Amino acid sequence: MADDQLSRIFAALADPTRRDVVARLAVGDATVGELAGPYDVSIQAVSKHIGVLTDAGLVSKSKDAQRRPCHLEAEVFDLMTKWIERYRQKAQERYERLDAVLAELQSDELPTNHRHPQQGAAS
Amino acid sequence: MADDQLSRIFAALADPTRRDVVARLAVGDATVGELAGPYDVSIQAVSKHIGVLTDAGLVSKSKDAQRRPCHLEAEVFDLMTKWIERYRQKAQERYERLDAVLAELQSDELPTNHRHPQQGAAS
Repeated sequence: MADDQLSRIFAALADPTRRDVVARLAVGDATVGELAGPYDVSIQAVSKHIGVLTDAGLVSKSKDAQRRPCHLEAEVFDLMTKWIERYRQKAQERYERLDAVLAELQSDELPTNHRHPQQGAAS
Repeated sequence: MADDQLSRIFAALADPTRRDVVARLAVGDATVGELAGPYDVSIQAVSKHIGVLTDAGLVSKSKDAQRRPCHLEAEVFDLMTKWIERYRQKAQERYERLDAVLAELQSDELPTNHRHPQQGAAS
């Protein structure tokens, strides 16, 4: 069920240490050892987090270089923001329709002589 | 560790059924029964998904109405997009700096008589 890439990306970022790793890699490539430095965890634990980020496509590892630094694949963020923006926009349109309906209802509730206050005032 | 709201939001969206529920609620409020309709799962299962979305702050339930429809709290998306945008921008700035360095290196590699092709041509 959670096999699709979008699920893997969201799941990968649902952990503060993995978000920290992404934040660190946004500034520059780094080896697992360099990434483990600031944390009170083993290289193995950081390696496992990198594995989750790699499976989600957020991080890649250079195969040929001896240091094998981790690299952030920032364009993967687009998948998330596209999904978020689609539904944010739908929700926004809905609020705007609701506002229009409310405004319509309120104008209907006004007494007849107040319903068209600008009537005849435009020149 | 995964106690913060950002982690809960990402975790909540790491499931295709929960993303479908968000998509459905972006169009309009709906009861758990209405949300369960299109899925081959029990009301209990959908109820559990709604619970995860509610804990993350993405969905709220009207307490007073008898139907108790679920409502999407779309502004919670902002927390995610702010986080994503911060690191996307950092990564972008980094690529731009790399491009500038590469351009500088390439111009240094040109033979001396080609290094300043515009030299003396400016008037």
